[in-house]
Amino acid sequence: MNQPLFLYILLQLSFLIAPFNMSAQEDYKLWLQYKKVQDTKIATNYHSKINGIVALGNSETIQTAIKEIQLGLSGLIGHQITLQKNTNTENMLILGNQSSLDEAVLKNVKSEFDLINNEGYIIKTIQLKNKKHILITAKTDIGVLYGVFNFLKLLQTNQQIENLAITDSPRINIRMLNHWDNLDRTVERGYAGFSLWNWQKLPDFIDQRYIDYARANASIGINGTVINNVNANALILTPQYLEKVEALAKVFRPYGIKVYLTARFSAPIEIGGLKTADPFDAAVKNWWKEKAAEIYARIPDFGGFLVKANSEGQPGPQNYGRNHVDGANMLADAVAPFGGIVMWRAFVYSEHDVNDRAKQAYSEFVPYDGQFRNNVIVQVKNGAIDFQPREPFHPMFGAMPKTPLMMEFQITQEYLGFSTHLVYLPKLYQEVLESDTYSKGKGSTVAKIIDGTVDNHKISGIAGVANIGNDINWTGHPFAQANWYGFGRLAWNPYQDSETIAEDWLRMTFSNDEKFIKPVKEMMLESREAVVNYMTPLGLHHIMDTGHHYGPGPWVSNLSRPDWNPTYYHKADTKGIGFDRSKTGSNATAQYSPEVAKIFDDVANCPEKDLLWFHHISWDYKLKNGETLWNSLALKYQEGVNQVESMNTTWNKMEQYVDQVRFKEVQMLLNIQHKEAKWWRDACLLYFQQYSGKELPKSVEKPTQTLNYFKSLKFPFAPGN
Amino acid sequence: MNQPLFLYILLQLSFLIAPFNMSAQEDYKLWLQYKKVQDTKIATNYHSKINGIVALGNSETIQTAIKEIQLGLSGLIGHQITLQKNTNTENMLILGNQSSLDEAVLKNVKSEFDLINNEGYIIKTIQLKNKKHILITAKTDIGVLYGVFNFLKLLQTNQQIENLAITDSPRINIRMLNHWDNLDRTVERGYAGFSLWNWQKLPDFIDQRYIDYARANASIGINGTVINNVNANALILTPQYLEKVEALAKVFRPYGIKVYLTARFSAPIEIGGLKTADPFDAAVKNWWKEKAAEIYARIPDFGGFLVKANSEGQPGPQNYGRNHVDGANMLADAVAPFGGIVMWRAFVYSEHDVNDRAKQAYSEFVPYDGQFRNNVIVQVKNGAIDFQPREPFHPMFGAMPKTPLMMEFQITQEYLGFSTHLVYLPKLYQEVLESDTYSKGKGSTVAKIIDGTVDNHKISGIAGVANIGNDINWTGHPFAQANWYGFGRLAWNPYQDSETIAEDWLRMTFSNDEKFIKPVKEMMLESREAVVNYMTPLGLHHIMDTGHHYGPGPWVSNLSRPDWNPTYYHKADTKGIGFDRSKTGSNATAQYSPEVAKIFDDVANCPEKDLLWFHHISWDYKLKNGETLWNSLALKYQEGVNQVESMNTTWNKMEQYVDQVRFKEVQMLLNIQHKEAKWWRDACLLYFQQYSGKELPKSVEKPTQTLNYFKSLKFPFAPGN
Repeated sequence: MNQPLFLYILLQLSFLIAPFNMSAQEDYKLWLQYKKVQDTKIATNYHSKINGIVALGNSETIQTAIKEIQLGLSGLIGHQITLQKNTNTENMLILGNQSSLDEAVLKNVKSEFDLINNEGYIIKTIQLKNKKHILITAKTDIGVLYGVFNFLKLLQTNQQIENLAITDSPRINIRMLNHWDNLDRTVERGYAGFSLWNWQKLPDFIDQRYIDYARANASIGINGTVINNVNANALILTPQYLEKVEALAKVFRPYGIKVYLTARFSAPIEIGGLKTADPFDAAVKNWWKEKAAEIYARIPDFGGFLVKANSEGQPGPQNYGRNHVDGANMLADAVAPFGGIVMWRAFVYSEHDVNDRAKQAYSEFVPYDGQFRNNVIVQVKNGAIDFQPREPFHPMFGAMPKTPLMMEFQITQEYLGFSTHLVYLPKLYQEVLESDTYSKGKGSTVAKIIDGTVDNHKISGIAGVANIGNDINWTGHPFAQANWYGFGRLAWNPYQDSETIAEDWLRMTFSNDEKFIKPVKEMMLESREAVVNYMTPLGLHHIMDTGHHYGPGPWVSNLSRPDWNPTYYHKADTKGIGFDRSKTGSNATAQYSPEVAKIFDDVANCPEKDLLWFHHISWDYKLKNGETLWNSLALKYQEGVNQVESMNTTWNKMEQYVDQVRFKEVQMLLNIQHKEAKWWRDACLLYFQQYSGKELPKSVEKPTQTLNYFKSLKFPFAPGN
Repeated sequence: MNQPLFLYILLQLSFLIAPFNMSAQEDYKLWLQYKKVQDTKIATNYHSKINGIVALGNSETIQTAIKEIQLGLSGLIGHQITLQKNTNTENMLILGNQSSLDEAVLKNVKSEFDLINNEGYIIKTIQLKNKKHILITAKTDIGVLYGVFNFLKLLQTNQQIENLAITDSPRINIRMLNHWDNLDRTVERGYAGFSLWNWQKLPDFIDQRYIDYARANASIGINGTVINNVNANALILTPQYLEKVEALAKVFRPYGIKVYLTARFSAPIEIGGLKTADPFDAAVKNWWKEKAAEIYARIPDFGGFLVKANSEGQPGPQNYGRNHVDGANMLADAVAPFGGIVMWRAFVYSEHDVNDRAKQAYSEFVPYDGQFRNNVIVQVKNGAIDFQPREPFHPMFGAMPKTPLMMEFQITQEYLGFSTHLVYLPKLYQEVLESDTYSKGKGSTVAKIIDGTVDNHKISGIAGVANIGNDINWTGHPFAQANWYGFGRLAWNPYQDSETIAEDWLRMTFSNDEKFIKPVKEMMLESREAVVNYMTPLGLHHIMDTGHHYGPGPWVSNLSRPDWNPTYYHKADTKGIGFDRSKTGSNATAQYSPEVAKIFDDVANCPEKDLLWFHHISWDYKLKNGETLWNSLALKYQEGVNQVESMNTTWNKMEQYVDQVRFKEVQMLLNIQHKEAKWWRDACLLYFQQYSGKELPKSVEKPTQTLNYFKSLKFPFAPGN
């Protein structure tokens, strides 16, 4: 029986080509793959430098650190590194906090301890009795755990570990995720499946995912998590649910992660049986005090409350003629005795306020500066509108020197293509963090405002709205894991370069092969500008389709609130396009420091990337490239599409460096992104063309569908809505 | 620096004890673990008998078979078994359908081909030129794939593979899963997360899970899937969704799995723009014909429609004064030209019908016998009420000889503790399948009714309401995987013993170690009786709490429909308890064959396990054990609790045989089950005690809470509701 040879080969190939394991293992492991180091020279060297582990202390956190280092080393080096009782043999890896170290060890790191804070760590090669060892230490056990993860990172990224002398500390106190998770496990703006929290099986069933979630967060220094939606349900504060929250807090505790909850302002009515939630009402104050005591009895290290009040229909102090200060301080007093904090969101805009929505949060909150309790921190979105592909930094940053402001970034891609589009967000975060508010003169960057250095605040914080769900790969898109990772890295140190972070993530997640790193890193770094170009170039914003925000909807103009309509934001007409927020318009520019306002106000000096955010510009206006605004707009949309095309080209060359499952996932997703980038280009240009009345430049591809076709598209079950 | 030895040991242990990998890999792989055969003797023997693979044919299905055999063998044997061009060397594994075999091979299996049907397979050791080989063949490519999975099963269960001579064929044509999945990805009665189908990313993103779902189903012979909820949404029939369904059908096709959809009867109005959905209306008939043509243009092997009509608020032909025959036949005519079928559900009961709900489906459908088109099959739940822990077989089985009846089992545990309780359902399925309807005299078992042998039907079918969700382990409870597996095995052969199936599943999923198999198999086999005992002993039924059906609610009596109230079903009063369905009562017994009715009618002969299903019995009535009904009821509840306790004891001894993650998962879940079994016992006994007015027997533990406490429990976000 003879098979034609071609068939035989074809079958052999088919086995090579098709992904075929029942495994999404790599996907699940995130950046903690701990695969064996490929370069055998490096691997051997690592092994020779790490003969054993000497662990000091016995807290849950230290035990966690030991397990992690053993797990990591056994994977990376390929040998189980065992625990030793002492440092008699050389090349021990010594783990322990400051108090656990004896003099012989301590004198090696005296000066380093002055360089770190309570969560910082030291990784240093030391000599004991002429024997070299590597010491990982810190002032606290959690610092030791952070040191362990960062030591493992050195190996994961194939760096040398001779004569190590590393000290590092987080610049921001509160580094947290905000989960917009509902109790029915749907996730508002969630695109990676559904909530991780299986409320029905809690408290008695601890999903392995809870542990791995904590590991992943600890590995990047995240130390807090708000596990429920800011559009809150009071039931989370009932004993039935607090028992479940307590179980999660117990899982997260050894990893240095505090649990926080959102507080529904009307909870005293809904679950407390009171007639009012007025923050001045004695019974209400007392109810919150007792509720706080009840929570802390279960969770002694409970972090505190996050509150969305009088915003988008949520109840708040204004329902009772009180203001945000009254509400925030009342809750702050309830948690203060237990060391808790209140994070009060500044994301407010009123249907009764006819002013530019971009101005409202500033107008409402800035006058309150100095009136909040010292355990209140005001949480401000990075921009004045709502997590757009690009926004100028929020004018509140730098404007409330007496109030600690907490940054709220969005990791989930509500307005950036869900978990379908590859967009590397740390690039966006860095742009915001580096923006100069000039609040205390040049160099008063947003980073320095939120880490408290400009105004010397004791508490500082940064929150990322999580993109995590119960998809096997956690984030829906394999590359969306980089946004979770990158957020954590910037939360630890907001001065880091997003390029370094991208490279670390790629090495830890995929491969250390330069032929992979270089092109894929470039692809990531370009991805954010690409999405701006094919969705909202030149300062356009909020022209996504209604409700779900999936795809273009610049034509939407019929929503109950004017400031929910895309037409409110682009203001396209036959004269031109853009929102005049300059002196001649809403004068939102006046909310910035004079140095900044001056630049934004002046059409000629306003950065073109923000042009239509601040100005209504004639279609014929010439940009720096010499092209008219209309042509430039069209060319930007085309450029975005071209960028996604080249992302595809890059990725298609990477098959040999990536496991089949992830290679194909990314390939399929990039294809969809390319399709949808064209959809954005065609829909927006056809729509704006009605007003410009001009032809598309030659280098812009002609739309393949009519405007009516694009308007007709409906997505009744778009996720996250 | 010296560590106290105890601490050193403690730390070493902590690493052994705590599960600590970021992996739920085993969980995900289901019964297709393909782990290396532990017994080296057996492994060596397997390797010696399989030197290579000679694959004939080049269909997608054959390529799939090749990939699966290579994946399986490389795992089980630990060596990659390569493809060979011919059988010149001995011990080849030859794969190919009948037409691909040459004479030399064919003459070895001439007689076997007469023993199998189109989906059957042959696994036989043959001789070619004095060289031994193993042949896996069939009449069709899908038969070959089934043969491959069953050959792998031999290895997975460590059976010998000398002189093989196996022929096997499925006894039932249509072996399918029903997914009650909604387009928003919630799953009605789903307890394993949310829907697998990511509609937003379809059609262009093919989740690896879709492929692995198909592999798992093909491995047990499932050949159809209804991917959306019987409480249907017409949007699934729009081009926007059909394009996505087409993509799934393409993934499933090589695995022999046909896609079916539920048809919302009012679709012609909702998405067709018609004024009516009257099955006699020409425009309606035409709309369905064109819709069918549209679907088949995309999916040539589309299976057909599943319809829930005029049931629990779903629209149907009765809205237009027509009947079920009119509706079913109209749809049947639409799909007939393409070879499609219509599965019409018999799960109907009317709020306007004051008769015993258990009688209504029979009363309505039996008169229609013989009036349905020959491509209509009526889908009947295993019992007359609704997927209870135990029900007598549905009286419709055997009562409609001219109509093929399709069995509908529920795999998801709506009334059996969700995915939290370990209940091995094949035991329940077997009990139903072995029930004798006496429709054509003794031996007319339900199995013989549904496989068509009693009444010589051309089409036969069996459906299982899936327990599959996007949890990493697919089914929420690791042991719930056995219910998916077991359903498939019984769908292939409804005469199999559930004990054999449990043993195969345990060996494939966990271990071949007898010290594990024996006790855990016993635990599984006992689990179904345990849940009956602690929930609904002695024929009690439908006393679960309202809506979500989680936990006990025998007191519920205030629902809009009387036949939704638990009190309707148990009818407890001071005289006694139970639903009199005998001659003296609703006379539901008369719907069974006289031989069966006679037994159920007679209190003395009625099986005690069904006693309160058919009779209202005095609290003092003496059961065969000599105890009063009240005491027996209480003792049964206690027995259920004791059984779960011993399941815990058994499992706790199994740690050494199971990976840490799954061991702990099952351990935690069994603990919850034990808690909830007590909850059931205490709540039900306290409630019924109000009527019996009697003390609990000594051997029954005293309740630790009051009846009011149990009544006060609320589960606002219980899953699946």
